[in-house]
Amino acid sequence: MPIYLDHAATTPMRGDVIAAYAQALAVVGNPASIHSQGQNAKRMLEEAREQVAASLGADSVEVTFTGGGTESVNLGIKGLFWAREGAGRRILVPEGEHHATMDAVEWLAKHEGALIEWIPIDGSGRIQLDALAAALDRFDDVALVTALLANNEVGTIQPIAEIVALAAAHGVPVHVDAIAAYGYLAVDFHALGAATLSVSAHKIGGPVGVGALLIARRATVVPLVHGGNQQRGRSGTQDVAGAVAFGFAAEQAVAGLAGAAGLAGLRDRLIAGVQAAVPSAILRGDPVDRLAGNVHFTFPGCEGDSLLFLLDVAGFSVSTGSACQAGVPEASHVLLSMGLSEPDARGALRMTLGHASTAEEVDALVAALPAAVASASRAGLAENSRFGG
Amino acid sequence: MPIYLDHAATTPMRGDVIAAYAQALAVVGNPASIHSQGQNAKRMLEEAREQVAASLGADSVEVTFTGGGTESVNLGIKGLFWAREGAGRRILVPEGEHHATMDAVEWLAKHEGALIEWIPIDGSGRIQLDALAAALDRFDDVALVTALLANNEVGTIQPIAEIVALAAAHGVPVHVDAIAAYGYLAVDFHALGAATLSVSAHKIGGPVGVGALLIARRATVVPLVHGGNQQRGRSGTQDVAGAVAFGFAAEQAVAGLAGAAGLAGLRDRLIAGVQAAVPSAILRGDPVDRLAGNVHFTFPGCEGDSLLFLLDVAGFSVSTGSACQAGVPEASHVLLSMGLSEPDARGALRMTLGHASTAEEVDALVAALPAAVASASRAGLAENSRFGG
Repeated sequence: MPIYLDHAATTPMRGDVIAAYAQALAVVGNPASIHSQGQNAKRMLEEAREQVAASLGADSVEVTFTGGGTESVNLGIKGLFWAREGAGRRILVPEGEHHATMDAVEWLAKHEGALIEWIPIDGSGRIQLDALAAALDRFDDVALVTALLANNEVGTIQPIAEIVALAAAHGVPVHVDAIAAYGYLAVDFHALGAATLSVSAHKIGGPVGVGALLIARRATVVPLVHGGNQQRGRSGTQDVAGAVAFGFAAEQAVAGLAGAAGLAGLRDRLIAGVQAAVPSAILRGDPVDRLAGNVHFTFPGCEGDSLLFLLDVAGFSVSTGSACQAGVPEASHVLLSMGLSEPDARGALRMTLGHASTAEEVDALVAALPAAVASASRAGLAENSRFGG
Repeated sequence: MPIYLDHAATTPMRGDVIAAYAQALAVVGNPASIHSQGQNAKRMLEEAREQVAASLGADSVEVTFTGGGTESVNLGIKGLFWAREGAGRRILVPEGEHHATMDAVEWLAKHEGALIEWIPIDGSGRIQLDALAAALDRFDDVALVTALLANNEVGTIQPIAEIVALAAAHGVPVHVDAIAAYGYLAVDFHALGAATLSVSAHKIGGPVGVGALLIARRATVVPLVHGGNQQRGRSGTQDVAGAVAFGFAAEQAVAGLAGAAGLAGLRDRLIAGVQAAVPSAILRGDPVDRLAGNVHFTFPGCEGDSLLFLLDVAGFSVSTGSACQAGVPEASHVLLSMGLSEPDARGALRMTLGHASTAEEVDALVAALPAAVASASRAGLAENSRFGG
């Protein structure tokens, strides 16, 4: 069994969550049915909704279950954009957002007349708040702001309260993509004041294919999916068992936040270990304001993909943190937005820890890393010479 | 435990499907990850995609997994509509379609400039093919036709091959909503020639929150949800375990079609039993071309909701087949489109059988029905006199 250090891609489900899920799967009834079996399913669903709401400082009426995080982000952005017709069609977006956000706003620009204003981020991946403030002052047609609560690649925590406050001063609603942060940081939807907020169950030990969009009581979103109006922002038969598993995982995730300091300690052990083992490695993202589970380095002269494959063979599951389509390695747009050169960005490796991670796993990776880096460096050189670089 | 005769709302999951699902849930890895654990997850996913494709006479490249049937229908219709920009913006839709279709096309009309042409259905719920042919002749701006393969309320099987052939003669693509039919009728996507076709896992013994849209190789749909481009028509982390459970259920559903004659026999036993026990009851939908699991009657002078509640108390889970929002009974738009009066339509009761149904259950319902109808008739009379009718 490989050592799994890719919790940001997806986190293993705990055995007790799987057991609760399987039990709920055996319960018969569509929660929209008015007979007793349907009403029983509805009770289970609403209890789960309450658990998810409580884990995020929201009311259950503010929770719309979705088919996953990407759908949540699309609904949180497109739904707000459409609901704000008349108010404006400009969307303010930091650079370095997740592809779900980038592709959603680019579709809105291409297809629905949206105007996109990209807000720069600094070398640590943090939004430049003065640039956001300037854009909010300059444009009177802003439909919404959307921003990550914490970056999914480099783990940098955004000053999201400041972002929401700046937008609120102009009466502009904010969508927050909290998918990477959920379970690693406390999230308080009401205190934050966002209009919509996206989360995903499989990042906190729940099932894949289940997510939620929080929609503030005062906010309106136009649905992506129309039909029976089963929820405020979404139609379709509601997945009771998925919600039950999500609710259970949400309770555990909140309880686990008490141990976030321990996870951060493990993260710092890994960071220090990498720096000692490979002194040329450069830590990316904010060294302090970063997710408890996130470690991200670039290795000068290495191809991250080569490193990933070599570590895979050595029994470790890690990530480059970059999109890799059809085997073609591509430099991360997050790192490029942070000011890295393309060759530097291509040397990226993301190692993300979660509830099951141990010091032994961290130490084993640190021990295996120098040999992998040495091989990947040769691969990098070979690659460079092949392309005449 | 009540006797469940509402399989069209959702079908119980078989124990072996739940077990396979739970086993897949314990496998760690995002199929988009390039390490071995990710690639293992991807293999499981693609095997499941192959199973679903095989169950529908499609190729696996034509299967896009979705978050459920309603999303499939929305993607199948909106995605085709957007992809056909330039060709036209008119949508031909039979009356009596599912709410997912009706609400999706109405949103397209309100928001995206679609023009909707409703095609009448006859007294049995069947599309009037001559009206469809006339509409295809009359309009040269038809973007698509969408139609149910079989009606989810009254079970009438549509002449879908004729619908597709008529549209094809005009070069118009067709979306087929096969959700109610899947598992009760053999579906051959390639033989049918539709551009897109929607199915849902939980109607065939798979999990809720998992569906698929078949997209023909030659067809293009614009996604509803943008992001990592994980699938042809949809972005988002793919739900491997859900797909595995869906694939397993799809294999069982196809195997079960061999027993459809048995299910149809049970259906006919229920129909004959109801007619003998309550001679005033009127069978709705086509008596011959109907789904093997579907029984639908109206009971003159009765409120379907009263009947449903009385049967619920007596230990039977059935449906009125109509939308019931916030406790306000509403006559089914399907029955109204079939020409029923509003009072007649409000007397509807849908009883749907599935893989677990038995002759004993059918006979028990038939035995309980006369007393329930007698009580519901009094309720209907009281209601009528209360409103002076």
